[in-house]
Amino acid sequence: MSMTGQLLIGQRACRGENGELRGLDAATGKALEPAFGGASLADLDRACELAEAAFDDYRERPLERRAAFLESIASNILALGDELIERCVQETGLPRGRIEGERGRTVGQLRLFAEVVRQGSFLDVRIDPAQPERTPLPKVDLRLRNIAIGPVAVFGASNFPLAFSVAGGDTASALAAGCPVIVKAHSAHPGTSELVGRAIQQAVSIYGLPEGVFSLLFDTGRSIGQGLVADRRIKAVGFTGSRTGGVALMKIAAGREEPIPVYAEMSSINPVLLMPHALEERGTQIAGGFVTSLTLGAGQFCTNPGLILAIDGPALHLFEGAAVDALKKAAANTMLTPGIHSSYCQGVERLLAHAEVVTLGQGLEGDRYQARAALFATSARAFLQCLALREEVFGPASLIVRCADEAELKQAVSALEGQLTIALHISEADYPQVRALLPTLENKAGRLLVNGFGTGVEVGHAMVHGGPFPATSDTRTTSVGSLAINRFLRPVSYQDLPAALLPQELADGNPLSVPRRVNGGPAHD
Amino acid sequence: MSMTGQLLIGQRACRGENGELRGLDAATGKALEPAFGGASLADLDRACELAEAAFDDYRERPLERRAAFLESIASNILALGDELIERCVQETGLPRGRIEGERGRTVGQLRLFAEVVRQGSFLDVRIDPAQPERTPLPKVDLRLRNIAIGPVAVFGASNFPLAFSVAGGDTASALAAGCPVIVKAHSAHPGTSELVGRAIQQAVSIYGLPEGVFSLLFDTGRSIGQGLVADRRIKAVGFTGSRTGGVALMKIAAGREEPIPVYAEMSSINPVLLMPHALEERGTQIAGGFVTSLTLGAGQFCTNPGLILAIDGPALHLFEGAAVDALKKAAANTMLTPGIHSSYCQGVERLLAHAEVVTLGQGLEGDRYQARAALFATSARAFLQCLALREEVFGPASLIVRCADEAELKQAVSALEGQLTIALHISEADYPQVRALLPTLENKAGRLLVNGFGTGVEVGHAMVHGGPFPATSDTRTTSVGSLAINRFLRPVSYQDLPAALLPQELADGNPLSVPRRVNGGPAHD
Repeated sequence: MSMTGQLLIGQRACRGENGELRGLDAATGKALEPAFGGASLADLDRACELAEAAFDDYRERPLERRAAFLESIASNILALGDELIERCVQETGLPRGRIEGERGRTVGQLRLFAEVVRQGSFLDVRIDPAQPERTPLPKVDLRLRNIAIGPVAVFGASNFPLAFSVAGGDTASALAAGCPVIVKAHSAHPGTSELVGRAIQQAVSIYGLPEGVFSLLFDTGRSIGQGLVADRRIKAVGFTGSRTGGVALMKIAAGREEPIPVYAEMSSINPVLLMPHALEERGTQIAGGFVTSLTLGAGQFCTNPGLILAIDGPALHLFEGAAVDALKKAAANTMLTPGIHSSYCQGVERLLAHAEVVTLGQGLEGDRYQARAALFATSARAFLQCLALREEVFGPASLIVRCADEAELKQAVSALEGQLTIALHISEADYPQVRALLPTLENKAGRLLVNGFGTGVEVGHAMVHGGPFPATSDTRTTSVGSLAINRFLRPVSYQDLPAALLPQELADGNPLSVPRRVNGGPAHD
Repeated sequence: MSMTGQLLIGQRACRGENGELRGLDAATGKALEPAFGGASLADLDRACELAEAAFDDYRERPLERRAAFLESIASNILALGDELIERCVQETGLPRGRIEGERGRTVGQLRLFAEVVRQGSFLDVRIDPAQPERTPLPKVDLRLRNIAIGPVAVFGASNFPLAFSVAGGDTASALAAGCPVIVKAHSAHPGTSELVGRAIQQAVSIYGLPEGVFSLLFDTGRSIGQGLVADRRIKAVGFTGSRTGGVALMKIAAGREEPIPVYAEMSSINPVLLMPHALEERGTQIAGGFVTSLTLGAGQFCTNPGLILAIDGPALHLFEGAAVDALKKAAANTMLTPGIHSSYCQGVERLLAHAEVVTLGQGLEGDRYQARAALFATSARAFLQCLALREEVFGPASLIVRCADEAELKQAVSALEGQLTIALHISEADYPQVRALLPTLENKAGRLLVNGFGTGVEVGHAMVHGGPFPATSDTRTTSVGSLAINRFLRPVSYQDLPAALLPQELADGNPLSVPRRVNGGPAHD
């Protein structure tokens, strides 16, 4: 298998005729072979037509087949071997070890969703049996199951070229739910996208699924991405990217004749609260962990710690000193794209020039597209007054907010926008203060974590990678972990359907052995 | 307890100074005592302030107390006795038996949600225990629970003055989820609203809850309703009403700085498919049930059968004849408001005047505000061409679409917008045809039912009262039944939180005995 620069529309591979784009070597900015042809609106229309045609067939395939299909995608990705790893390293500038780890995570996600599909509790089967003798009115037979919502548009993210891109969490959870997927490839890693796209295309073929289950489109402008969200056949959207991009898609979706859900994971500064006793007892140790988390992957994680909140004093000064010492030794790392690098530099310039912001230190300088880490400090007063200080600077930059006292710390916490994560560094003596803060923190973030940093997102059943706006567009869900499947489901209730017509999940005797609730309680059938 | 015309803002009752409105005797149009003062924006602000202040306290009250609070609301409503029933009959024109039945349903809903709260599976507790020995990286401890989303705005509906109004399904499910509620009373039954509002206010007091858990506002224009949806402290909206009204609220919510979910149940014509063998075998019998369902409650049900789809021929003619015979004897019934009556008359006029529509028959004429039932027929060709024929006429009017053949029937089904219900009348010989139609029908409606009509919505665990747009604004949920609680929840994940700080639901040893999943499977702790 190798790259051709073609669009994947169902089982076809065809040359896009709407301009072209190329992958760039992230380290040098040099254009790579081959050129990728951009999709036209006709290509988009064809992909949507196939997805719509595939939908009813795909969503009713046996759960075991759907699970095996997901596992087959995972195997096909592994079978790409070094070609995938090398291309991905080249396009993203991320180190080989990181990309190999991310491939493991991507494959792990697909396999996790295969298990979720087999286990069947995502169907939320509920049976309220008929009571023909009930007075004054007999009770009908009602059976409920979740079904797939419809074809889903997925936008590949730049910062996780495997785990949040073509076969990433959004695609895996949508396919697991029974939805066909059309991916708009991220222009930062078109080669990686094509290779992974072909791995999915192949799995569709092996499992004899209708071809519209998967398509991959390259977009040389914005018309394909916007057109996908606007298309009447698309019923939900998964997106990871900037706040501007996410909000634009939300507006398109809300303005449709039939509005649809958009799951956009957008913007988070992931505050870290250093509580007084923890800061006093082990501030310099925390500082080391902080700088490691801040500079990991050139700071290009959604959960990068962009904000530190603490009460000012000698302990905080020691923390700052230790953080600056570590930061000064931090090597600059290549960023994902020249555009991301240039945004990062602008964000750092704004902080360097800000009258209320002190520059504590910077990391080592690097090459042309490498990000130099930076650490700043400001007062809580300035933080509360200046909205710009609450904005994400995507990359290895962080801002320490020095609060005068506990009251100011609380004010700063209350002023936070929605976040993916809030980290707390605490000792036992801090518990009373933390206990009082917890309700506010719960309202601000999808994940609260203690004595750690938000980078490192475990893919499991109890993970929430979500949170109130602007962290995401929909706080009711997560884009990582098994719960993510719920985003692409809707409940349907069947009343008095004859046994011969009932879907298998709802049939008497539970032939599929899926978890079911009878009259609201656990079933024993 | 009796009516004063006051707003209920937390534990206060105060006179609204922003104009006034009165309940009308539905049968005569005569204004009733007392006058209700309209809320000002300052009243709205105060209610939101109290709701926000109450939120963190209320959502963490023990589940047992929350359940008992819901049951106390139910008892207080019953204790209102005849005063409530009489006022409600007067304001709505609905018969006493219907209102008594609706009270039973309202009380039953509150008690159902009390059980849901006690049972605890709505919390969706998930625990992925730590694996400190895992390589290459140790696994953190992750625990997930659902928490309440925030203060909720509920819009009372005119057509269910008890079950979908002040203490109706939206309020019950939001309170059950742990959300404070601010109700915008429907102007068609202000007296009923105040009485029920006081029953809730009293329960808040009995249970020592923070007063902002509940407020009730009267709106003399649209500023209070719109202002509620726009207010930054409101985090979700429940609405049952017209498509125009629902879409307007959706736009306000989507245009906020922080967009919020709107659960609007809006518009459905609830198609009834008469399959050929059933029509042949028992068409006249079905016709009787159809007319009963059509004229029930003056046709003012969200699930009223506004459309019949069938293949043309002698059997359909017999059905039509029998339906017209029954309809001619159907008494006219008082509608909820003069406005609804006038909209109904206009809708019927449009059909009477439509060039492609035949009037099959009308019911008995009635008094000034009574709705005369009406039955029309058209061709599938006209139905497919004219969008206006797919619009809801709220009241006892229905349209039969005569399809030339099975292909045209399929086309008509495919052209349907989203629906709350689709009913199928079938015999065993129809199964193959029905089986082929089912996937399309599932994509169109929240509930599919066989050999019955959508009116009569069972409140249980397996009910879906929802469906694709425009039936509702959010197809992922239901506004009736225990699943409705999910609308007002969001997941939060806790990573490595010390035992002393964990919420009880997540604590080791499961002290609350709530259902939990450990590593994705059922727990045995």
